[in-house]
This record gives sequence, C-alpha cells and structure tokens, in this order.
Amino acid sequence: MIQTIILKQRPVGKPTLSDFEFIKEDTDLNIEKGEILLEATYISVDPYLRGRMSDAKSYVAPFELGKPITSGVIAKVIASKNDKFTEGDFVSGMMDWKTQQISKGEGLLKVDKDRAPLSAYLGILGMTGLTAYCGLTQIGKPKAGETLVVSGAAGAVGSVVGQIGKILGLYVVGIAGTDEKVEMLTSKFGFDHAINYNTTDDMKAALRTACPDGVDVYFDNVGGTISDAVLYNINKFARMVICGAISVYNNTEAPKSVSVQPFLVKNSALMQGFIVSNYMDKFPEAMKHLSGWLAEGKLTYSETVVEGFANTTQAFLDLFDGKNKGKMIVKA
Amino acid sequence: MIQTIILKQRPVGKPTLSDFEFIKEDTDLNIEKGEILLEATYISVDPYLRGRMSDAKSYVAPFELGKPITSGVIAKVIASKNDKFTEGDFVSGMMDWKTQQISKGEGLLKVDKDRAPLSAYLGILGMTGLTAYCGLTQIGKPKAGETLVVSGAAGAVGSVVGQIGKILGLYVVGIAGTDEKVEMLTSKFGFDHAINYNTTDDMKAALRTACPDGVDVYFDNVGGTISDAVLYNINKFARMVICGAISVYNNTEAPKSVSVQPFLVKNSALMQGFIVSNYMDKFPEAMKHLSGWLAEGKLTYSETVVEGFANTTQAFLDLFDGKNKGKMIVKA
Repeated sequence: MIQTIILKQRPVGKPTLSDFEFIKEDTDLNIEKGEILLEATYISVDPYLRGRMSDAKSYVAPFELGKPITSGVIAKVIASKNDKFTEGDFVSGMMDWKTQQISKGEGLLKVDKDRAPLSAYLGILGMTGLTAYCGLTQIGKPKAGETLVVSGAAGAVGSVVGQIGKILGLYVVGIAGTDEKVEMLTSKFGFDHAINYNTTDDMKAALRTACPDGVDVYFDNVGGTISDAVLYNINKFARMVICGAISVYNNTEAPKSVSVQPFLVKNSALMQGFIVSNYMDKFPEAMKHLSGWLAEGKLTYSETVVEGFANTTQAFLDLFDGKNKGKMIVKA
Repeated sequence: MIQTIILKQRPVGKPTLSDFEFIKEDTDLNIEKGEILLEATYISVDPYLRGRMSDAKSYVAPFELGKPITSGVIAKVIASKNDKFTEGDFVSGMMDWKTQQISKGEGLLKVDKDRAPLSAYLGILGMTGLTAYCGLTQIGKPKAGETLVVSGAAGAVGSVVGQIGKILGLYVVGIAGTDEKVEMLTSKFGFDHAINYNTTDDMKAALRTACPDGVDVYFDNVGGTISDAVLYNINKFARMVICGAISVYNNTEAPKSVSVQPFLVKNSALMQGFIVSNYMDKFPEAMKHLSGWLAEGKLTYSETVVEGFANTTQAFLDLFDGKNKGKMIVKA
C-alpha cells in the first residue's frame, strides 16, 4: 500500500492538519527502463515549506492544490532499471511526500551510510549545513574576535551557525525559547552565552549585557520582536544575515516591526536575505569544511526524529511551536 | 559684528526655533601666524544635522549644547597669515554657523568660482553629488535596463541619483510630495515617471503600475510608509540603498514599519545603510564623473537659496516640511 500526503487547501495563518489529506492506494508501482523505485527512509520537514503552501510570489513556486508536498528526502532504491543506481543504494534529493515513488534519478545524489548517519544528509551535510555555512561566510563575513548573535539558535540551521562561529573564533550568543534549549546551546553546542526570549522581559537590555562589545554579525532565523531588539545593539558596519522569519510566517497580515532604516543608516549596516541555492558555487568548499569538521568532532548536531510517515504533517506543524531541537526529521 | 548660531537645547521631536540661539558679538577677530579669517558665503542645511542634535549614539558625535552648529560652508578668505591661502580665495569645508571665524586651514579645500557656481560645491560637486554617486554605484550596483526607484526624489541627493540612473541606462521612477516637484522630476531631471505620494491613496499599486518590471534598485531617502510600499514591488536580488529616513527622523519613539525580513528572504534582497565617508576612496572617480557630466550638460541641479544668515535655522526647519527643491542653502 502506498501513502501520499497532498495539499488539500492553502493554510490561512497557522497550518492545521485539515489543510492536508492522506491518500492510501492499494497498488504496486512498476518501473520501466531508466527508472528506479524509491522507498522513503527519512523526510525533512522545514519552516520554508510554509511559504510554498501559499500562492503568494516567493522564491520557489507554490505547491499545487491536490498534489503531493515535496521536500528533502532520503530514500532507498528498492528496484532499479537505471544503470546508475543499484538496489540497496540510498539517495538524497527533493521528492514527494510518498512512501514509495518512481524516479528517473535526475537530481538525486547517492549518499554513503557508512560515512555519516543517513539523516545527517538532510541536516548538517545537507541543506541545513550548507545554509548555515554559506549564509554566515558569504553574507556575515565574520572576523575572529567579532560578536555573532544567532536567533532560532537551537534550530537546525542556528545550532550549526553558532558552532561554525566558534570554529572561526567569534564570541557567540544564541537566542532560543526554552530553558532546556538555552542550556543545550552552551553545554552541547559551545555557544558563549544563550538567552531564553520567553523568560526575558527586556531583550534589548539582555542583549546589551550579553554582548558588551555590540553585535557585528546577526544570523536571523526568526524576525519579529527578537530581531527588533538586536537592531538596538548592532555595531557600525554590522552584517545581518536574513535566513528566515519563522516568527511571522503564519501572520495573515504583513507584520509590523521597528523601522530598520534609521538603524541601517546610523550604523552603515547591511541586511541581506538569501536562499542557499544562491551560493551553489560554494557548495564544494562548504561540504569539504562541514564533513571535515564533523569528522574531527568539531561539529555536532541535534535532530528530532518523529517515527512514522503518518506523523509527517504533525511534525511540520510542531515546527511552529518550537517542539523540535535541531533538525526535524520524519523516519518513514 | 559677528553672529553665531548655537544649540540651546536638544530638540524633542521636530526641532523649533527655540532650540537655537543667536549670539551677536560686537568684536573684531584678529588672526595670528598660520591662521586665516573666513567670512561665510554659503551655508549648507541638511537633514542629517537633526541626528547630531540628539545625544543618541550615531555615526558622528552629537553637537554640544551651548556650542555652534557646524555644517558644510563655503567661505571667503578675508585675511590670511597662512601661506596656503590668499585674501579673496574661496574655500569649502565643515565650519561653524558663524558669519566670521578663524581657521588654520585644516580640512579646507579651495574652490574655483569660475569652474562652477560657488554653491555647487555644497551640492552636486560636494557631499550631495558624492552621496548620490557612491550610494547608487557602490551599493545599488545598477545595470542598464534595470528599474530604479528614488524616494525624496526632488531633494538634493535624490534628483542627482535619478539623473545618474538615466545616464547609466536605467528606467527611473521618482517619488516626491507635491505636483510641482513631480512635474520637475520628469521635465527638468529626466525621470521616466514620478509619483506624488501625497495625492496617491495606494502607493503599492501606483508603484506596481509605474514599474511593470518590478524594482531592482531602490534609493531610499525617506523610510516610513513610502519604503513599505516599495518593498512589495521589489525583484529577486533587489538592492535597497538606505541613504536616509527623513520621514521618521523627528519621531520620539522608534517608528514601526512593515517587517522587512520576509521580503528580504523571499527576494534574496539587500538593504545597506551608508554614509558618504565610507567611500572616500571612490571620491576622485566620483568627482571626475560628476564634473564631467555637469560640463557636458548631462546633469542639472536645483537649489533653494535662502537669503540671510539670520534665516539659517528656519531654512533647516523647512527641510522637514519639504519646502526645499533640491539642495537647501543659505546665502549668508
């Protein structure tokens, strides 16, 4: 039996389970010459998918109603009529949210389960690690001794950004939403300091205390009031890497924040949004560093693995309540 | 008799005449060896001076209470005991708001009244022109055929930005606040299209119509709701040059605007604040182009010249009501 998750209706505000539909088909898939049959092993659920569920103009085309959601997936080749793939291979790529699917192998990358755990290829050795590395180095242009602040710091990308910051010799402060996450940032990921925004009344003052030399690089995953508070603490020539704005993704009206322009003028500061594919030419360099640091034990990662394909949509919804620590992954 | 304008108290919100004091001294200034005696000819009044009247952290030190305001001034050397200057020379530099003052000549530049009108050295061949050129080329990185939007377009910097945009082969849309200014943008400065924000209900829609290919470069002098409307129309990889935010300079509380982060992420867009002195290494190149274009008749400029030193503070206040067309200058 093959299960598929399709987008039933476009979410308004925060997505709910009823925006999705599970379809079960009692059928066998038959492959033809050049094709492979794939069985999903791990499915990546990511905040950016929320954007594709709306039909507003964005950097990737919206999902179509009635069609499967797609995201990063690790799958096992269970049958092959394609010379490039053998039964038993594991591959990584953008695939449908289906338990089984047919592919011609285009855009799929073989991954080595003996070199790193399979799920790592969706995280620290996948888009997550590449996003962290490329955003921080290409936009943040960090220099040893500078101060780096990371919001959404216990998330998949944020926790890698902070660790790379430490490897590059920065003073690193993380912002997260629970005491447990904050504790993990300093004990597990080596951040110099971490702030729980849910138990801090005055984030502006807390950041001033945490960053006595001001903020040179801000890696922003959340937007909203947390980013407002950072603005008051930036230094001249600060670089703000705008990776995401999860705190406002579900707003139905355009959210309001403190006007950034006066801060940018006063400090000759930069804000730059990006998606990781802008930096494809840097991927080989990034993968070399990431896998090297991982092998040397300089990088570690957290993942929240939800068991069962049937829980994929709930795992996606949980992202917006901060229920994940590190990369959120479904084991299908 | 020598007149001086000092900062009496720090303005709260919009400055008023009572924030300043005129001092008249019935005295003669005597110069010593190495000094020159200067008589103010033209005084530049600029929006950025508002920032220096507050004691908040900014890119330049605040003015001291009880001390003269300083700004760009063109002065005549009326006596000299300094080998480098001769009676009758005209010089440009940062000077006090005084009818006469003594200087050692440091930081002063001789200007040639036969090459361009003296007041041009405060404008198109001074900080105004340099700001327009450096911000547009170094941050905006315009490419021929792209669309440039300029806010505060009838102001000193804005009108030069738009003209440089046309010289570089861009489609140029200006935003200003009166029908007269809007008319001037297209007839005098060669903008392709201009919008009066005071008579336009839906700026977002007006910009969409005026910029059918979207906005690639935004040169922002004003911030606030006008800049919010531009955000909705930016293209992928848009560059927003943040030169000023005059619409919010007099706010006593941090103004709120539409959150920029989601727009930056969606479009991989950039916002960069600056002050002209960041690009000092580009000044020779900039001056070569600006004076060349001026001589060829490709650049023109407006200035509002207010007569009389006694009207200097009122001229400054008038900036915030948009009473100037182009560079606001006082003829002392």
